[in-house]
Amino acid sequence: MREHHERLSLFFGLPVFASDALSSAAYATEAILSILILAGIAFMAKLPGITLAICVLYLVVVISYQQTVRAYPSGGGSYLVASDNLGERPAVIAASALLIDYVLTVAVSIAAGVAALVSAFPALHPYLIPLNVGFIAFIAWVNLRGVRESGMLFAFPTYGFVLGMLTMILFGVTKAWGMEHPAQQVVADTGVIGSEATVPILFVMLRAFSAGCVALTGVEAISNGVPAFRAPESQHAVLSLRWLAAIMITMFLGTGFLAQYLPEVSLHSSANPEYRTLVSQIAVFVFGPQSIGFYAIQFATAAILILAANTAFADFPRLASILARDGYLPRPLSRLGDRLVFQNGIVVLAVLATGLVVYFRGELDLLLPLYAVGVFTAFTLSQSGMVVRWRRLREGNWRLKASVNGFGALCTGAVAIVILVTKFGEGAWIVLILISLTSAVLFAIHRRYRAIANQLSLAPGRKVEVKRQTALLLVPRVHEGILAAMDYAQALHGDVRALHVTLDRKVVPNLRRAWEEHVGDAPLVVIESPYRSLIEPILEYVDEMLLEDPDRTITVVVPEAVATKWHHRLLQENVAAQLKRALGRRKNVVVSNVRYFLK
Amino acid sequence: MREHHERLSLFFGLPVFASDALSSAAYATEAILSILILAGIAFMAKLPGITLAICVLYLVVVISYQQTVRAYPSGGGSYLVASDNLGERPAVIAASALLIDYVLTVAVSIAAGVAALVSAFPALHPYLIPLNVGFIAFIAWVNLRGVRESGMLFAFPTYGFVLGMLTMILFGVTKAWGMEHPAQQVVADTGVIGSEATVPILFVMLRAFSAGCVALTGVEAISNGVPAFRAPESQHAVLSLRWLAAIMITMFLGTGFLAQYLPEVSLHSSANPEYRTLVSQIAVFVFGPQSIGFYAIQFATAAILILAANTAFADFPRLASILARDGYLPRPLSRLGDRLVFQNGIVVLAVLATGLVVYFRGELDLLLPLYAVGVFTAFTLSQSGMVVRWRRLREGNWRLKASVNGFGALCTGAVAIVILVTKFGEGAWIVLILISLTSAVLFAIHRRYRAIANQLSLAPGRKVEVKRQTALLLVPRVHEGILAAMDYAQALHGDVRALHVTLDRKVVPNLRRAWEEHVGDAPLVVIESPYRSLIEPILEYVDEMLLEDPDRTITVVVPEAVATKWHHRLLQENVAAQLKRALGRRKNVVVSNVRYFLK
Repeated sequence: MREHHERLSLFFGLPVFASDALSSAAYATEAILSILILAGIAFMAKLPGITLAICVLYLVVVISYQQTVRAYPSGGGSYLVASDNLGERPAVIAASALLIDYVLTVAVSIAAGVAALVSAFPALHPYLIPLNVGFIAFIAWVNLRGVRESGMLFAFPTYGFVLGMLTMILFGVTKAWGMEHPAQQVVADTGVIGSEATVPILFVMLRAFSAGCVALTGVEAISNGVPAFRAPESQHAVLSLRWLAAIMITMFLGTGFLAQYLPEVSLHSSANPEYRTLVSQIAVFVFGPQSIGFYAIQFATAAILILAANTAFADFPRLASILARDGYLPRPLSRLGDRLVFQNGIVVLAVLATGLVVYFRGELDLLLPLYAVGVFTAFTLSQSGMVVRWRRLREGNWRLKASVNGFGALCTGAVAIVILVTKFGEGAWIVLILISLTSAVLFAIHRRYRAIANQLSLAPGRKVEVKRQTALLLVPRVHEGILAAMDYAQALHGDVRALHVTLDRKVVPNLRRAWEEHVGDAPLVVIESPYRSLIEPILEYVDEMLLEDPDRTITVVVPEAVATKWHHRLLQENVAAQLKRALGRRKNVVVSNVRYFLK
Repeated sequence: MREHHERLSLFFGLPVFASDALSSAAYATEAILSILILAGIAFMAKLPGITLAICVLYLVVVISYQQTVRAYPSGGGSYLVASDNLGERPAVIAASALLIDYVLTVAVSIAAGVAALVSAFPALHPYLIPLNVGFIAFIAWVNLRGVRESGMLFAFPTYGFVLGMLTMILFGVTKAWGMEHPAQQVVADTGVIGSEATVPILFVMLRAFSAGCVALTGVEAISNGVPAFRAPESQHAVLSLRWLAAIMITMFLGTGFLAQYLPEVSLHSSANPEYRTLVSQIAVFVFGPQSIGFYAIQFATAAILILAANTAFADFPRLASILARDGYLPRPLSRLGDRLVFQNGIVVLAVLATGLVVYFRGELDLLLPLYAVGVFTAFTLSQSGMVVRWRRLREGNWRLKASVNGFGALCTGAVAIVILVTKFGEGAWIVLILISLTSAVLFAIHRRYRAIANQLSLAPGRKVEVKRQTALLLVPRVHEGILAAMDYAQALHGDVRALHVTLDRKVVPNLRRAWEEHVGDAPLVVIESPYRSLIEPILEYVDEMLLEDPDRTITVVVPEAVATKWHHRLLQENVAAQLKRALGRRKNVVVSNVRYFLK
């Protein structure tokens, strides 16, 4: 877990927080082209324009986020910024959007990573679903075991991918420079090319733009991670954001440029065994088929994508813990450090992501349209929150800052609506429903916690009261463990009664003898259990005691054997837990567990 | 459960304890014939002789058991008699034999009941396995819900079956009397008739005799149930035994006699769709095919067999509880009255029986050879125990009594060996292994309990000691529930420390303010949890306290919210259980649960 980290320098911090963002270069250009082809081959020429528009949007978002990072040096995720400035409702919606988004990050990244592998080894295509599920299971398993995240773990695949991509772009541009645009041959599944030729041009363009917006996923991560950087934290985080933008825009423009020089573009759907990622086609064009360069690019792509999925496995439980702290998820989830809690988050995330990849048969092009809806919702809420913040504080040049974030909010808000509209039928509706459902659950949990707080709130004068106390010691036999429990009961309680429920009348005389020898005058009550039950007679006896004196508190002292080996543990039982369940809503009864240890 | 019964008269007691024994009339004759046919059609003539021999054996066993019933008016099952007189080893073997036997009672009775139904409705034959599994599941379900066993429940099917069989025999004998033996036509599966013609005659006869010994299963039940009869209990039980013998021998001789007058005998294996039970063939001969009499016999047979399986579901948990009381099975199993315990027994029995019928594909003729090995082992051990008893007591005419039981033990012992040898390959070896394994497990459990008793045994002078006590109250927030826990801690302990583990520094000032207002001067320790764990810091604090003063006992008081609705319960957690697990083998730490209640 990141909590355990050394503080990160810029060089190691960038890969830790930007691997997710950078990895989207692996599929963003392809996403645009696969929409444009729907309107006809002529529309492929629109790629540079759309790519440029997205790069501008990237700059707007990054500039806007620089202000967030500076304003929230202890971490400024969308949920925090929204809850700080916009109130409960927008904050919960932002949180829901992010939770759903982490699931999609896992599903999309793994599907894209598998797509890169399948492009290198087409024989793997029939195993799309098992490969996806297998990788998710693997990452979940690594995280369940407790991965020691080191800067190195992130640095290698991230810089490997960036270096590979930049090298490919450099070689490619050198090769293509001065070449005439080739008359591209486009291969796609039957019935795809031009199938949307009758749709208004603007709609097609917006749809392609929406598809390309997956390039912006992952930017949020740096604003979350500010405190993990070395001092000055904000400064390092801002530099990271800038480097991220520079690298990302270079890779995005580069792939967009090179895509136009491919002599033949294949744009099959992921379900088609002929499917190859666009990046792999560019790698073939630049390095030649089955060259070392080609395989290096495929492996680097797969590696960074798996790493990107891995970051969601740290981020999802972390956001859940913040929500739990604020009472929107079960409170125990806030204890990220307790193994069980962290593991629950991992299992939930893995199950949901597996559900998604199985439902969409591991096909990247079906999963991509779901992505980015949540991201842009969170962007918009976060930056709107920043605007409110500047207006509230009115410090320094707040007007400029407010307009920067305001412009960012406006742009991302508009894009969010465009994405929702243009991708609605492709799957955005699913995300919309999931975000609404998640929000409803978060609100319901919060309401319940508020109701509990009201129930339990203390009247102003309420002080500690002291009540009469009686201990009831359960005595199955007389031995060291029972005597230890009796030590305990007598030390605390003036009034101790020992209770033996007998299933076998014959043992009673021996029991009484041992009791008198070792304990002496403390009373030993023996109850016969006609129906051979242990719990029922105890309950009846407790009820009688409560009737005698309803104000008294009864402590049932349960001696419990603790064995070391699991097969020895089968022979012991937890009477305390059964008793607590059986006691139901009886007040003034406390169950105390005195443990003794077996070899 | 039988514990809840009114005392039973002879009329109602007989069906309750003898339904299992009587039901074996449904398949015993068939079992003999299906072995004789293996040696050739001529051998079918040996049926009357073998039937008579088994009837004599029946008388010997019943006479011998009369003495057991008189000697053990509080119930004299084989395990009890053996442990009383022969010591641990034979008693455990008898118990293992009986436990395995209850599983076989369920499997064989259900398979035979289904065979009766399939003989009436041959269209059901392809569903042999689902029918078997379904009936076992049904009986298990009824027992899990808690069946109210009444004398009537047993009386109807048992007397219905007896009346039906006796009517059939009466009509049949009237019809056959004076008829000449017909030249019987025997139909069997290819390759069956005469397949053992070369085997020595004696072996074939002994094997057929062994097969017929399934008639003696269930006799033990009455000796178990003596205390359930009306006073004088032993007298009623002895009368039951005698009536059982009279009815059983009549039915057995009757079916044996009538089988010889069937114009055509079909002896297919149960796997063959042409398979019909012998009793159903006799019913057709006596009442005509598809007559009311025929269907009545089939339904009565199925009903008593399902009832016989049902008795095992009461007997198995009861024997398990006696073994648990004596420390041969996990002690909690002795608490037959606690729902969970009884239900565990039922589920285990149902799962094992289902395993058997599925493994043997629901075919009666494959299951039958397994039966009776355990029964005769238990018979022999029980009666040997009686011999030892008479020799030890030397009261009245002990020599006569000892020789009666001795003769019984000799006969059943010899038969046990014959069964084991002649049926070894057919499945007796499985039973032998199962009994050995079960015995080994029972011994291992007993050894472990003895080791525990030694570890915990009290030195003669050991008395209760009083130690210093400190309470550690966990305070997540300050509210009514926490204050109730503080009431409790202060009432008992002079020294109370409150402990708050903070995951969020911001809440601490408010917490301190509330603490001072409502609790006042008791110390509130606040620990920060850098890794957002709750359990770890508590453990560290407890360890520090133990280091300060190793002799002190620390009571960790854990306030716990109890919600009514299950979805509200999801929001609560059981810190006490997690803490107990985490405390491991730390001594002198007690966990106390003070519950408070949510609406």
